[in-house]
Amino acid sequence: MRQFKAPDVVVRRLAVYLRTLEQYSEADRQYVSSQELGQLAGFTPAQVRKDLAMFGEFGKQGVGYDVHSLQQELKRIMHADQVLNVALIGAGELGIALARYIIRRGQRQDDYPFHVIAAFDADPHKIGLRLERLVEIQPAEMISEVIRELAVSLCVITVPATAAQQVVDAAIAGGARAFLNFAPAKVSVPEGIALTNADMTLELQQLAYYL
Amino acid sequence: MRQFKAPDVVVRRLAVYLRTLEQYSEADRQYVSSQELGQLAGFTPAQVRKDLAMFGEFGKQGVGYDVHSLQQELKRIMHADQVLNVALIGAGELGIALARYIIRRGQRQDDYPFHVIAAFDADPHKIGLRLERLVEIQPAEMISEVIRELAVSLCVITVPATAAQQVVDAAIAGGARAFLNFAPAKVSVPEGIALTNADMTLELQQLAYYL
Repeated sequence: MRQFKAPDVVVRRLAVYLRTLEQYSEADRQYVSSQELGQLAGFTPAQVRKDLAMFGEFGKQGVGYDVHSLQQELKRIMHADQVLNVALIGAGELGIALARYIIRRGQRQDDYPFHVIAAFDADPHKIGLRLERLVEIQPAEMISEVIRELAVSLCVITVPATAAQQVVDAAIAGGARAFLNFAPAKVSVPEGIALTNADMTLELQQLAYYL
Repeated sequence: MRQFKAPDVVVRRLAVYLRTLEQYSEADRQYVSSQELGQLAGFTPAQVRKDLAMFGEFGKQGVGYDVHSLQQELKRIMHADQVLNVALIGAGELGIALARYIIRRGQRQDDYPFHVIAAFDADPHKIGLRLERLVEIQPAEMISEVIRELAVSLCVITVPATAAQQVVDAAIAGGARAFLNFAPAKVSVPEGIALTNADMTLELQQLAYYL
């Protein structure tokens, strides 16, 4: 069961710390200070210390944080210490590019937690094609069944706006619990299901306000 | 000069209202209630009324909002009533898929404000190739110059992490003022420059927390 319930803004920063720690880990650094971590992550040292203090004592006065221990603990909290099965729903150009990005990243990085193991499309011509020779595109009608069978927890949604709610509902029926939605549509999910909207037009539109 | 300075969370909702209003506009609806708009956008009617009241009196008691007027006003505030020149920096698979998405959307929708007019890559083999037969890929060394020449305001960043800061700096030197960053790297920008991070791994990692 979940023991640590962080607000969304903290979860976002924890994900950034985890990404930042990988760089120190790759460089074989044993310790990192809150100053260094904050600078590379883009937050103040005080913010770093406050966030990390929420789940234990990782810092040593005058030495900093043990990179390996902190990384392991953050991975555990963020569920990055396990294999997370991902499905691509909507194998258009954008979907395929995104899925390939995840697959290739996993091929380069042993402990990359996200594994694309299923892909779906409504176009009969695409059924049976494979992404990176690995992941076969299956018909949209199979979403619930395949997601249940393969224990998919995360879905990347790249279908047209009009199909988004339907495929998300099917995925939830199969047991999926988190969605990264690139479709330009508002999708409703029940309590306990996580959804992030990544619609490009919406992102650009928000940025345009600041021009 | 800017007359309306909204907090980031309000700007996000305004972008969603604008997207939602398009659907009513396409369906030739003259009025929409805060209930309807809120339901489709995913916010409460009270939130809709509060947000929209910030910049004028658009609602009519018992009738709702005039779809066309509200849409025009939101477009004006969000700068969606003008052509916004976009550059793609990093013409890898993901970048090309994202740029094509924007270009094709513009071909389908007359008033789509985002126009991709430049693309850059560091790979000499890609120079001279065209996206959708329209946008020629130019060398990364030309970023500042071309962005200045073509009055690019928004950049989509899809370069490797190690190149991200450098290309953003070059784009800012050329006059770009807003960035949608897909590179898995923290990028620093000076005051007055807008930046949204859209790193896929970071988005998935945040969602994984809730599994």
